Amino acid sequence: MTEKPEMTLKPIGFVRNKYKENPDREDWWQELVSEIVIDESLEEGLDNLEKYRYFIILYWLHKRDRENIALRINPRGRKDIPKRGLFATRTPDRPNPVGIMTVKLLKREGNVLTVQGLDALDGTPVIDIKPWNIGYDAMDGEVYRD
Amino acid sequence: MTEKPEMTLKPIGFVRNKYKENPDREDWWQELVSEIVIDESLEEGLDNLEKYRYFIILYWLHKRDRENIALRINPRGRKDIPKRGLFATRTPDRPNPVGIMTVKLLKREGNVLTVQGLDALDGTPVIDIKPWNIGYDAMDGEVYRD
Repeated sequence: MTEKPEMTLKPIGFVRNKYKENPDREDWWQELVSEIVIDESLEEGLDNLEKYRYFIILYWLHKRDRENIALRINPRGRKDIPKRGLFATRTPDRPNPVGIMTVKLLKREGNVLTVQGLDALDGTPVIDIKPWNIGYDAMDGEVYRD
Repeated sequence: MTEKPEMTLKPIGFVRNKYKENPDREDWWQELVSEIVIDESLEEGLDNLEKYRYFIILYWLHKRDRENIALRINPRGRKDIPKRGLFATRTPDRPNPVGIMTVKLLKREGNVLTVQGLDALDGTPVIDIKPWNIGYDAMDGEVYRD
């Protein structure tokens, strides 16, 4: 293996919404509207971003305990689905607790983005914002072969 | 703002391919085949991953200088495209140098994944592997409104 580099993230902003804890139901985020408040020193980096409709948000799963993760899990905690490796799931309990979600941008006002569909809790540190791009991010189907 | 958390990543593996430096042409990665060598201690986390066809790879842009980034840039370095904020582009020069790319899994042998379409150089630290999921990652178009 190559030498291990120092890889430290800094928040570019934080999420604001009504959920401080995970609601106890699936897909609670789909209609949820959140604000992403970007650090004012980075506001120039948002220039013309509102010309895109969808963005991939990278964020730090700050409520998760990364030290005690299971390598094989039941997807979505459902005991009726056989266990598989965590890298074959989107579980938030990962060696690096970085979440990604594609969201719809509703509006931008200065350094505040209003988005729909972010599955992150209030106070979540935001790591990056990338425009969703059909050339990079679209595929022809989910294709899970059972 | 909320207090700043400590957010340190650890590589789960490394990329192996023929490019140690960025080739001087666009889309050099589309046909490129890479190996992703996952740390053996995490191999169980790959169980049944080969049932998915596409994966989103998160990786650390280890050759980039994150201290000297421009907030507004010409997309893809093209002077004929007007400058916009870096968060309205997929530039690798970002406050947090985390790249994401959706790739096709060609095969898995133990802790080694062979993938096509990864835009990362040889030796790149890998941060996460997530199955591409039509419910989370598909959108109805790029929609950049000029």
